[in-house]
Amino acid sequence: MPSSASTAFRSGDYFHILTKHPQGQIFAQDAGLGFERAGGVVMIQIFTQGGRSQEDKQRLFAAVADKLATLGVAREDVFIGYVENGAGDWSFGLGRAQYVTGELSVPKK
Amino acid sequence: MPSSASTAFRSGDYFHILTKHPQGQIFAQDAGLGFERAGGVVMIQIFTQGGRSQEDKQRLFAAVADKLATLGVAREDVFIGYVENGAGDWSFGLGRAQYVTGELSVPKK
Amino acid sequence: MPSSASTAFRSGDYFHILTKHPQGQIFAQDAGLGFERAGGVVMIQIFTQGGRSQEDKQRLFAAVADKLATLGVAREDVFIGYVENGAGDWSFGLGRAQYVTGELSVPKK
Repeated sequence: MPSSASTAFRSGDYFHILTKHPQGQIFAQDAGLGFERAGGVVMIQIFTQGGRSQEDKQRLFAAVADKLATLGVAREDVFIGYVENGAGDWSFGLGRAQYVTGELSVPKK
Repeated sequence: MPSSASTAFRSGDYFHILTKHPQGQIFAQDAGLGFERAGGVVMIQIFTQGGRSQEDKQRLFAAVADKLATLGVAREDVFIGYVENGAGDWSFGLGRAQYVTGELSVPKK
Repeated sequence: MPSSASTAFRSGDYFHILTKHPQGQIFAQDAGLGFERAGGVVMIQIFTQGGRSQEDKQRLFAAVADKLATLGVAREDVFIGYVENGAGDWSFGLGRAQYVTGELSVPKK
């Protein structure tokens, strides 16, 4: 995750799971906003360490929609939910909580 | 999500991802409650904006089990985990955080 | 979930969803830690009631990596994110919130 929504991810710090869902098994309305989804929704859950500002989150949402647009995803189709945990809630490998052991420094917020 | 567990969802405000898992890849015991799952568990994660009362959550859990029962799902098989984030953690499309921009009003709790 | 990272799960208290993802659809870098994934990452989200100590979480992360190692999963490949909710956020079946109704006692932390 970027600490701001610049296009630069911190090198080596990228993680995803991508799943393709059959028509009908993924479904999103417009929440009353008055737009129509274009070709099917792309639902994104960003699961990351807490602490980013509301402004950073908004820049991130915009950057995600912008990036996906370059791949042909309509901006109407980008649905995002963001969920936070703490620094001590991550293990990047080896059974260690690297933010707690000090192997990784907690990102500045 | 309903703001109460009435059967009425706010019009246009419905979102889901549904995934069918092969036998054995989805697994739930009874947590020691002494019942048996009937035909295989249906695990539901409700991921939504925080602020609903405990009573509303309980009405929602009951309503989910009731609705699924009408589709033939045994009430023993309905497993639910509820997880919350904030109003500013959602983008319904267009890269915008509509609860923050004011395009959507934050539901009354 | 174990209340500590002993090898004993509370009897009857085990739940999982396991999904196999095609190459490329699951992806994890090393976060700059300087190790290489061995044969493909195993991403684990532990979604559970809050309240465990940081020490318990670390023992749990280590125990998960140790257990998976016995199945042939390289410790470099075990990626874990832990996310918490509250006792009232669970229904184990029957549309009831068993930690709230008192059918289950909230685990001691």
